[in-house]
Amino acid sequence: MNAPAPTAQQVGWDSVDVEAVNTVRTLAADAVEKVGNGHPGTAISLAPLAYLLYQNTMQVDPADPHWLGRDRFVLSAGHSSLTQYIQLYLGGFGLELEDLQSLRTWGSKTPGHPEYRHTEGVEITTGPLGQGLASAVGMAMAARRERTLFDPDAPDGTSPFDHTVWVIASDGDLQEGVTSEASSLAGTQELGNLVVVWDNNEISIEGHTSIAFTEDVLARYEAYGWHTQRVDWTNGGTEYREDVDALAAALAAAKAETSRPSIIDLRTIIAWPAPTKQNTGGAHGSKLGTDEVRGLKEALGVDPDASFAVSPAVLERTRSLADRVRTVRAEWQAGFDSWRAAQPDRAALLDRLLAHELPDGWTDALPTWGTEKDVATRSASGEVLTALADVLPELWGGSADLAGSNNTTMKGAQSFIPAEHATKEFPGDIDGRTLHFGIREHAMGAILSGIALHGPTRPYGGTFLTFSDYMRGAVRLASLMGVPATYVWTHDSIGLGEDGPTHQPIEHLAALRAIPGLTIVRPADANETAVAWREILSRREPTGLVLTRQNVPVFPRGRDGFAAADGVARGAYVLVEASRPTPDVVLVATGSEVQLAVAARETLEADGVATRVVSAPSLEWFAQQDADYREQVLPAAVRARVSVEAGVALSWHAIVGDAGRSVSIEHYGASADHVTLFREFGFTPEAVVSAARESL
Amino acid sequence: MNAPAPTAQQVGWDSVDVEAVNTVRTLAADAVEKVGNGHPGTAISLAPLAYLLYQNTMQVDPADPHWLGRDRFVLSAGHSSLTQYIQLYLGGFGLELEDLQSLRTWGSKTPGHPEYRHTEGVEITTGPLGQGLASAVGMAMAARRERTLFDPDAPDGTSPFDHTVWVIASDGDLQEGVTSEASSLAGTQELGNLVVVWDNNEISIEGHTSIAFTEDVLARYEAYGWHTQRVDWTNGGTEYREDVDALAAALAAAKAETSRPSIIDLRTIIAWPAPTKQNTGGAHGSKLGTDEVRGLKEALGVDPDASFAVSPAVLERTRSLADRVRTVRAEWQAGFDSWRAAQPDRAALLDRLLAHELPDGWTDALPTWGTEKDVATRSASGEVLTALADVLPELWGGSADLAGSNNTTMKGAQSFIPAEHATKEFPGDIDGRTLHFGIREHAMGAILSGIALHGPTRPYGGTFLTFSDYMRGAVRLASLMGVPATYVWTHDSIGLGEDGPTHQPIEHLAALRAIPGLTIVRPADANETAVAWREILSRREPTGLVLTRQNVPVFPRGRDGFAAADGVARGAYVLVEASRPTPDVVLVATGSEVQLAVAARETLEADGVATRVVSAPSLEWFAQQDADYREQVLPAAVRARVSVEAGVALSWHAIVGDAGRSVSIEHYGASADHVTLFREFGFTPEAVVSAARESL
Repeated sequence: MNAPAPTAQQVGWDSVDVEAVNTVRTLAADAVEKVGNGHPGTAISLAPLAYLLYQNTMQVDPADPHWLGRDRFVLSAGHSSLTQYIQLYLGGFGLELEDLQSLRTWGSKTPGHPEYRHTEGVEITTGPLGQGLASAVGMAMAARRERTLFDPDAPDGTSPFDHTVWVIASDGDLQEGVTSEASSLAGTQELGNLVVVWDNNEISIEGHTSIAFTEDVLARYEAYGWHTQRVDWTNGGTEYREDVDALAAALAAAKAETSRPSIIDLRTIIAWPAPTKQNTGGAHGSKLGTDEVRGLKEALGVDPDASFAVSPAVLERTRSLADRVRTVRAEWQAGFDSWRAAQPDRAALLDRLLAHELPDGWTDALPTWGTEKDVATRSASGEVLTALADVLPELWGGSADLAGSNNTTMKGAQSFIPAEHATKEFPGDIDGRTLHFGIREHAMGAILSGIALHGPTRPYGGTFLTFSDYMRGAVRLASLMGVPATYVWTHDSIGLGEDGPTHQPIEHLAALRAIPGLTIVRPADANETAVAWREILSRREPTGLVLTRQNVPVFPRGRDGFAAADGVARGAYVLVEASRPTPDVVLVATGSEVQLAVAARETLEADGVATRVVSAPSLEWFAQQDADYREQVLPAAVRARVSVEAGVALSWHAIVGDAGRSVSIEHYGASADHVTLFREFGFTPEAVVSAARESL
Repeated sequence: MNAPAPTAQQVGWDSVDVEAVNTVRTLAADAVEKVGNGHPGTAISLAPLAYLLYQNTMQVDPADPHWLGRDRFVLSAGHSSLTQYIQLYLGGFGLELEDLQSLRTWGSKTPGHPEYRHTEGVEITTGPLGQGLASAVGMAMAARRERTLFDPDAPDGTSPFDHTVWVIASDGDLQEGVTSEASSLAGTQELGNLVVVWDNNEISIEGHTSIAFTEDVLARYEAYGWHTQRVDWTNGGTEYREDVDALAAALAAAKAETSRPSIIDLRTIIAWPAPTKQNTGGAHGSKLGTDEVRGLKEALGVDPDASFAVSPAVLERTRSLADRVRTVRAEWQAGFDSWRAAQPDRAALLDRLLAHELPDGWTDALPTWGTEKDVATRSASGEVLTALADVLPELWGGSADLAGSNNTTMKGAQSFIPAEHATKEFPGDIDGRTLHFGIREHAMGAILSGIALHGPTRPYGGTFLTFSDYMRGAVRLASLMGVPATYVWTHDSIGLGEDGPTHQPIEHLAALRAIPGLTIVRPADANETAVAWREILSRREPTGLVLTRQNVPVFPRGRDGFAAADGVARGAYVLVEASRPTPDVVLVATGSEVQLAVAARETLEADGVATRVVSAPSLEWFAQQDADYREQVLPAAVRARVSVEAGVALSWHAIVGDAGRSVSIEHYGASADHVTLFREFGFTPEAVVSAARESL
């Protein structure tokens, strides 16, 4: 029996293409069957879409997966990793048949979900639903900024910087709030370079989506301002026919629509044409089983006894992608070379950014502060950003509706916003650089990842530290990927005052430090803040910069016994030395509490207790130092140690040890001015002195 | 000059009501001015809405704020806390003028954001945007279940259990993803008892919302299946006129619509009629300033020199609310008494639930397990839930589309779902009890809080432990409020296997334990799981129950040296004693790693090392025990200690101390089978033995 062939005349598919698409289906079934677990259903039913995208539609080059001019592909439905792996194999991006055979096993290139930097051709790690689509919005924003930064005057579609971001999203992606946030913003941003294909198969793990998902998705996207299309392969439930021509036309129309993002509702039947498990939740996340795999192969008209079968003709066809793309690539290269010749300054900037370099002497622009007045570290951060605006054109960012509170706006910078949505407060156009995420912290996190992944610019985004909770899903994924997004988290303790316990971080520093791969930096004063930014920009890691709302003293650097702020680069450093070479006690503090340690030191020293103050803005950077340096700062012999931080003590147990004490807060805050709160909750020099005496 | 009076003929407002509404505005301005910070703008412009709701629309009784038959009010725009506080003062719910005068100060009843259990009449803590509206969806679901549980046969609108959930939401609420998730689900659930008023003032902290929020909100809500209405007090921008009659009609229509949730787009001008700051971001989150407050009072035609002025006539009118509600209340009481007489069994159930009691002998229903086969703790949890179904009708819950994986469905239970959305897999109706949240973890968290806050039932909801990140905002707020929601978090370590690092929790146990007020319980085997549920249901705290995907051994309780599982109730207990009264080393483990400690003990004891194994399912419950018990379990004299948990060591530093060791994982996992992962990442009896030797 032959499977009904897809309708694909206009796209020019011949029998080899049809065989290739069916090969995708059998490979998906075989790969899951071999390992015994995984997600076969979607990879089977989306075979024509994936093949069309990789072999016909997308501007990609298997010989050069990092090609600057490439389209970006985001498999937001990351559980269907085979949808991508099989195309990376067929197209010749670096995977081979044995990689598919080692799906989801130790050491393979084909883990359960696609992983950035693990598998060539994977642009982003996906799996946690919603993150992919939301990050794709960031990629589309980055693509627009890249275009306006390097080739603003080229007519539409003629620039080597013109490309499209393609997304495959599942029902699950469209239920997640992070997707709603990002999609609404994509509408405001009029991201015409973004195309989402929604695999509307009406099946999720709990079966038919009717049980929890009955909204009119396309009407919702119209409300967001998107371009919407529908391609129904079920023909209203009457007959399943894979109309690839209709799909290709929809993709073309979506790409042609450059003033709005596009979504295509592609109605499919999951696992079609598997004989009994198609259209069931059982085909979503489990192997089909021997009989069903046989039945699938019989339905496709291929040998039911063959496993991982790929005909030479199929592989020859799909691997010819590299040849087919050569003309396009050559045309692009010619355009790129012309651009480079015509715009040497911009080309030099691009080269610098692609090399991940910072310009010579850029740190000269960093401001410094004297001790004459107290400065909130959030304000210092704002001054740093403004100072860097001209020096680092790659740096851009904004806030989740707290620009004035997070101090995330570079003075004089225009906003990145379609001109018709610019406001009196925030003038701008599509070539601006101040970002406005709206009150959407989670999308902000995912978008920052998308911008950083797309390259070549460097994004940051701000909110209150408490609301890092809202964006934690995105922050974790950024940390897993190691993407250089910077989170500007201000209002970092009970020191924010009257807004009260809902807004006061208590556990957040500890909970964020717990995330592997994430760096947290909490500078003590304005000068530490500048060094923190210097290090963050030099290091290219996912980093949370944690800043005060309230003013804090600027320490007299290089005099009165205070060390230079450069020590921030090593994570922790001796800010004020004890009066004797071996201190009796070490006070370790971060951020706004360093001043308490400094004040406590005065009292202790006056009583003859040799007291060292260590400023420890980043425990992660400190952990990276060699053992000698760490011993210098925190000598093993000095067991009397006190940590001072306006958060839970959890981060500090390992540092202060059995003999140590932590001045901390282990409960929620309250609504009052910050002076009262610090006093009432025991953040005073006296409390630090008392803890030091207990520790001695 | 007199302010233009609102149009309020049909609702019957006279000049005293109008004066009262203007008093609301001046009180809001004065309260913020006095403390010097806060959010005056919305409280000023929403004065007519708040007054209408409290004085005319809602079924509330100032003499009995906990009245069972009351409507629920949720100020999702929690920053505008004065909107609620001023009505609680005027209506006589317990606040007085001096409380408004001590707004946002230490010890006052009027903190920056409304706080549950802190201020009488506040049903829920709000402030983090989106949480209020999302929890209101849970309240509406709880109200429906209350109705079907106690009075299913009464015609619509005739039951003492009929009431409405009213929400005031801001632009910010509508941008947050958690709101989108919950609103979509509210549409599926057809929650006709939910009414949201959206204060569409087009201003947020960054000024005009056009900069980031241009979607058609009502079209989006229509797509969700909501009933939508528009009331435009700006009359298309031509003239600002507060048409209270139109608003009252919209509220009445929304209440009358019982088959769909309702949203009213109320177009307002923030801070109207303040002379220069109306319609600006400056009026949102800062005091107006002396001149502007004077200007506001002049615009309202009241004495600009008077502060906190409330005329006796106004207070007499508003405090007469208690009298006016007396008739309604008496009618309700008569209906309630009839119901009670007619349905003694249901009344007895209600009495038990309102008393927060569990039925006699309910624990007899709890299953126990023998050692004959290994059981995943998630499976054991599923068996517990099924066993409790008939005994505890108040217990209900479900999953964020992972029912089969989280084992959250009580066998045989019908789903809580409008019949037309029920599926083959999940039959049900509005009187069902299995919840389907869709792939919406954050909304699930907020909805669980809403259900628990509404009472009298007990909700639970499940997802993978990794995705606790997605719901963290809601979990924190639940912990701050102390609401008894139970989170069933399964797939609790790298032990979930092939899905890989995106799905494998590493830092989550530590990060969740860091949240003040949240209890984490990670049972070691099936019998510990049953005791964990027993304790969770008895204690009424926000609790995360953390469960394995993979099978784990069932320990032989009461023989071979193994203690009974009852020790779970004390958080940590000696599971297997050492061969000598004072152990040489104590191994402390949780969950699936307890078996490793037990195996390591065998080796160590064979080598003559007296080894105690402590199972520590809940560090929070253990911390609540008296010092004697804690010393018994972890004797201070025994410094050789090893923790064993498949997560970061962060939680354990304070317990194992300087001499101790932690068998932990400090990096992301990988995609492979769980046996390989445990071996490759060092979770073996040998590794535990080795750590114990280092610690000795």
